[in-house]
Amino acid sequence: MIGYPNGKTASRSLNPQTVKQSAGGRGMSLENDLNKTNDYYLQLDKAVIHKKPTPIQIVQVDYPKRSAAKITEAYFKVPSTTDYNGVYRGKAIDFEAKETRSKTAFPFSHIHPHQIEHLERVLRQGAIAFVIVRFILLDETYFVEAEKMIRQYRLAERKSLPYSWFVQEGILIPYSLTPPVHYLRVIDELYFKEK
Amino acid sequence: MIGYPNGKTASRSLNPQTVKQSAGGRGMSLENDLNKTNDYYLQLDKAVIHKKPTPIQIVQVDYPKRSAAKITEAYFKVPSTTDYNGVYRGKAIDFEAKETRSKTAFPFSHIHPHQIEHLERVLRQGAIAFVIVRFILLDETYFVEAEKMIRQYRLAERKSLPYSWFVQEGILIPYSLTPPVHYLRVIDELYFKEK
Repeated sequence: MIGYPNGKTASRSLNPQTVKQSAGGRGMSLENDLNKTNDYYLQLDKAVIHKKPTPIQIVQVDYPKRSAAKITEAYFKVPSTTDYNGVYRGKAIDFEAKETRSKTAFPFSHIHPHQIEHLERVLRQGAIAFVIVRFILLDETYFVEAEKMIRQYRLAERKSLPYSWFVQEGILIPYSLTPPVHYLRVIDELYFKEK
Repeated sequence: MIGYPNGKTASRSLNPQTVKQSAGGRGMSLENDLNKTNDYYLQLDKAVIHKKPTPIQIVQVDYPKRSAAKITEAYFKVPSTTDYNGVYRGKAIDFEAKETRSKTAFPFSHIHPHQIEHLERVLRQGAIAFVIVRFILLDETYFVEAEKMIRQYRLAERKSLPYSWFVQEGILIPYSLTPPVHYLRVIDELYFKEK
């Protein structure tokens, strides 16, 4: 376990110069950063990747005259798939994004068993599947191939993955302004390099 | 315009014997049939295709003690993408499904301009994109390649597509029990035949 963000340079960054990230305080959530990133990709016609709407169980809807239907009772449902999917260079893209305030480990409780099963399924169908994990307090965001994370989840029956595992096995996504989380660069490197 | 379901045999059915469908009365909505179909594909590990949750704008949530968070005010949002997507044989799948009670034409008002743009985008990225249209009273369900429908939508500036157009340009999806709307068979034929 590493309690302090050392060892950064050992991570498989694609762009070592940018490994040293600006000191935190950006204060944007990972979801927010990914929305901006996906928007950027969409505008530039680089990829079509969207966050799925939050699944909600609607119980009661009012239909007032002259105005929009109003949902007055509904509940959050447990997601049965990952949050993000879409298409890039002909390939199906599917991923989950999670952040943690821990400096030492990523708790598997952040990922539902359904989501692991979903990742296994889309991998079998040939999708590019991964997990993006942000350590908020370390100000680091990692790209992890779904195969690797599933292996840990399934084999070790551990409750969490240590930060050092991400440094070793993940790929640090350097922070940039446009887009904030440029994960397609990692995908190009990992899946399209031979082309 | 054809006001009666004749001309069926002229449609590009993949399986002419099954063109003659059982008389209606199945009473299941297209959404329901597609959910069953996608479930069937999922169980058999043939494809991973899900309906996206309905996009909802949440305004107010109560957090009662000892029970689940309750959404007490929310509104339906206009969808910015299609309803269905996923992965099949490595390819991204993206489609919209619509039904109409008209016997003579499919009104374009059923499809949001956003959704047409979305289909254009995913096509540019190499997805397999299409629209499934059911004529409820004729008891017929057509697979239409997105390119074809977009062309009509964009070029003709017509308000609807006549039923006869579907007979000519669409592919009738024969009704079966398991799964009810076996659209992967059409995809195999159209996109994977050479393999």
